[in-house]
Amino acid sequence: MFLRNCWYAAAWSHELANDSPIGRTVIGEPIVLARRSDGTPYALEDRCPHRFAPLSRGRLEGDLLRCMYHGLLFGADGRCQHVPGPPVGAPVPAVRSFPVVERDSWLWVWMGDIAQADPALIPPAFGLDNPAWVMQSGQLDYDANYQLINDNLCDLSHVDFVHERTLGFVTGGGWSDELPRLKAQQRSLRFERWFIGKAMPNQPVLVDRWCTYEYHVPGVFVMENRSYPHGTAARIDFKAPDEPPLSYRIEQQAVTPIDERRTRYLYATGFEANMPAKAMEGLFEVIQNAFAEDRLIIEGQQRILDATPDDRRMAFLPSDKGPTAMRRLIATLIRREDEAAGQQQDRCADLDITGRG
Amino acid sequence: MFLRNCWYAAAWSHELANDSPIGRTVIGEPIVLARRSDGTPYALEDRCPHRFAPLSRGRLEGDLLRCMYHGLLFGADGRCQHVPGPPVGAPVPAVRSFPVVERDSWLWVWMGDIAQADPALIPPAFGLDNPAWVMQSGQLDYDANYQLINDNLCDLSHVDFVHERTLGFVTGGGWSDELPRLKAQQRSLRFERWFIGKAMPNQPVLVDRWCTYEYHVPGVFVMENRSYPHGTAARIDFKAPDEPPLSYRIEQQAVTPIDERRTRYLYATGFEANMPAKAMEGLFEVIQNAFAEDRLIIEGQQRILDATPDDRRMAFLPSDKGPTAMRRLIATLIRREDEAAGQQQDRCADLDITGRG
Amino acid sequence: MFLRNCWYAAAWSHELANDSPIGRTVIGEPIVLARRSDGTPYALEDRCPHRFAPLSRGRLEGDLLRCMYHGLLFGADGRCQHVPGPPVGAPVPAVRSFPVVERDSWLWVWMGDIAQADPALIPPAFGLDNPAWVMQSGQLDYDANYQLINDNLCDLSHVDFVHERTLGFVTGGGWSDELPRLKAQQRSLRFERWFIGKAMPNQPVLVDRWCTYEYHVPGVFVMENRSYPHGTAARIDFKAPDEPPLSYRIEQQAVTPIDERRTRYLYATGFEANMPAKAMEGLFEVIQNAFAEDRLIIEGQQRILDATPDDRRMAFLPSDKGPTAMRRLIATLIRREDEAAGQQQDRCADLDITGRG
Repeated sequence: MFLRNCWYAAAWSHELANDSPIGRTVIGEPIVLARRSDGTPYALEDRCPHRFAPLSRGRLEGDLLRCMYHGLLFGADGRCQHVPGPPVGAPVPAVRSFPVVERDSWLWVWMGDIAQADPALIPPAFGLDNPAWVMQSGQLDYDANYQLINDNLCDLSHVDFVHERTLGFVTGGGWSDELPRLKAQQRSLRFERWFIGKAMPNQPVLVDRWCTYEYHVPGVFVMENRSYPHGTAARIDFKAPDEPPLSYRIEQQAVTPIDERRTRYLYATGFEANMPAKAMEGLFEVIQNAFAEDRLIIEGQQRILDATPDDRRMAFLPSDKGPTAMRRLIATLIRREDEAAGQQQDRCADLDITGRG
Repeated sequence: MFLRNCWYAAAWSHELANDSPIGRTVIGEPIVLARRSDGTPYALEDRCPHRFAPLSRGRLEGDLLRCMYHGLLFGADGRCQHVPGPPVGAPVPAVRSFPVVERDSWLWVWMGDIAQADPALIPPAFGLDNPAWVMQSGQLDYDANYQLINDNLCDLSHVDFVHERTLGFVTGGGWSDELPRLKAQQRSLRFERWFIGKAMPNQPVLVDRWCTYEYHVPGVFVMENRSYPHGTAARIDFKAPDEPPLSYRIEQQAVTPIDERRTRYLYATGFEANMPAKAMEGLFEVIQNAFAEDRLIIEGQQRILDATPDDRRMAFLPSDKGPTAMRRLIATLIRREDEAAGQQQDRCADLDITGRG
Repeated sequence: MFLRNCWYAAAWSHELANDSPIGRTVIGEPIVLARRSDGTPYALEDRCPHRFAPLSRGRLEGDLLRCMYHGLLFGADGRCQHVPGPPVGAPVPAVRSFPVVERDSWLWVWMGDIAQADPALIPPAFGLDNPAWVMQSGQLDYDANYQLINDNLCDLSHVDFVHERTLGFVTGGGWSDELPRLKAQQRSLRFERWFIGKAMPNQPVLVDRWCTYEYHVPGVFVMENRSYPHGTAARIDFKAPDEPPLSYRIEQQAVTPIDERRTRYLYATGFEANMPAKAMEGLFEVIQNAFAEDRLIIEGQQRILDATPDDRRMAFLPSDKGPTAMRRLIATLIRREDEAAGQQQDRCADLDITGRG
């Protein structure tokens, strides 16, 4: 079960060269991504309408994409421009095209109803090229359903256990001590909390840390971590700070379902550009080790789930409010899509009856 | 869906040594191939009737094949000749045997009704040992349904695109420019066409090339390529030439389904024996690279097909006449088999009623 | 189909360290094994009731096992002792625990009704630490159903064929010449036979060998091989000997289903401690080669079975009495479990009706 009317981060911008298409599978559908001569991206079904060969094995010719099985040539809009050989009887159907937007270093693809593909629905992020930040990016494939990774990111109490010696260590722990404030928004959840009087690596004094993140439908995680002199939180009555922090770290991550059992995880971590560049090296290694830890536990969870009878229910804990709210939000949006599709079918059925009557 | 009443090229002759059986899976059925003392091959189900161990792990003892699980000994006709240990109560049922013919360097196995196993139905080929030719052979397994490979071989317009830098290059291209003449025969299709005024590697002058091939049920490709001085085709009014060519190349290939999703591809390429032997080296490398290109596109096609809803139809182009005719021919023969099987069942049912009446 | 009310050898004792849990899958169910501070083992479902993470990725804290996803802490009895963070609303359900006994170097787990988990039902074996024996152990995973391995061990006539150059050679062959005496017991079969006048490696004279083994439900093989001066068997009228043998070898093996298609095989071989220790080297290598031979034939058999229509029946030979008796014994015990479960359900239904009436 996937949400369709939303933007999925299908790939990093730098994965898509100017001269060659790439194939990705998003919510079970094969997609080919390519760039026009002017560099703007387009996205089509990765399926030539002739014999269903993957267009991602094709060749870019200016803005056009040639299927390299039998040479059919398609425009960025998916319409067939040329068929080699003798004239064809019926026109070749167009390849389905998908709205695609390049923003914040990701290629965002809309998998649903094109009429609803509003770029304003693209979740905010930072991008790798923002001069304000030093960023480093990576990616990882999970043999697991995407919701398990959403769960993981909507309940960071796991940092104390899964990442005890990596992220838990460098952040000073305490993630499971109390719940963050959780605010449901239209298509996202917002999490906020203070960590008080934490010892941080490379910082001589204790700090108060203001940690916030938003988790956007369908699976985009955008986090900010600001540290302040110890005492700040109490001074401003544990509200959101609006003064310049001692240090400032960010994360942007996308959880993009390949299919029901595989998920691609695109991530980047960064800090303010005024930090010494070599600080990134150690940080990025910690991040990579931490994501390997997540993968071990989540793929293990998937394996156990597969061996679990359907009627077994998970126990609900206070820390599950985040994951549960995210699952509900996605389920609600999927149900609305289904209802809208049903109404459309009903309308078609009505018309059909009228037509015959 | 497989045709049963036909000869499948199960293996190259040289794959089957004198002293040791081999196992192959053909249209989903495990087969053991072995040689009698006089070298003639036989084929049995690769399944000991005792505990279903593979006889292909067995041992040849003269003409006989011993199952090396519990030692049962079988004749080339599949009948059990000996059971170790105390006398058995009921006789051990025979292993099913399959008609097998060794011809043109292939071991042909008939998977259907033995009464219809006519060696005259074996498609013609050249063989690796014919002194008139220098031949080199290879094989390749596809993770794809056999019909996708049949399609590929019945529409060579793909040479210009899939093999642009390999086969397309050395043959001078132009495969997609026009359709070959296509003639349906009883159990095969015949393709013929002239290529006019082509520059060929290692030939100083332009040539006209007469290219013909037959594609035989269930998947045997036998091709001849003759080149003539440019002008020949026009002079003989674009008919089939009957004069000695400048050069003469041949191909024999078999597409043998392992099961619905895997296919074995046996191929050999050759030219007249009066050509310099080292010419083969370069040619065979081109052929191998070209078949790797086919495999990439066809396995990609299979992957896309698997992700495609059943109601999506492929677009039909003029160049699909060959593939479509081949699919129809196989479908027709399968339907006839089913009808014959149905009539046989009806006849049995009638007899049964009579018997009880 | 698996028997549940029986003891499965889930692992070797030495696989389970004092400080770290291990995960095993037994008859399709994920199990975590761990040791208390005093070294005694316990077994729980390998599934945290919170989010189904594998407890085998957890951490031992004294007797307790902490799930390292969100930090829940469980006792050896499966009860939840602590949940990090804010107080929980409802208590976390206990993890299912399994009776486990450590005996003869194996960790035996009871997968069925706890009330019936009688340690007296644990099959007898020797153990790796018995000072009377020099033992060496190993293990092997099969891609095959456990019953095929049971079959193999309940009919040793295969030794002459599968192990012709390994076990068959060092034991002097003759395994398929005659049937062993077979005695059905409550939950096991007993096999006995003499081999008369056999030449044995490293023994200058011919010997009579008294070979006995028991095969216990669900799949435990315990074998003894005693050799005597040639003539002994005839002198004592081919009865069981009660005099000290020239040499004495033992085997203990367990066939533990992972699931319907995978099986773990735990084995140890040994001889009397007064033999030269280096004799083990050669023997163990023979054993390992022999088990690799078994695996090849049995995995081949599984592959052929998968390609065999359901209505094909195996031929029955006299040597199949052992395998058939074992399959029947297991089938009978499974049917009894099903009947008992049915009666319990009926009883519940009755009570239910009464309650409502």
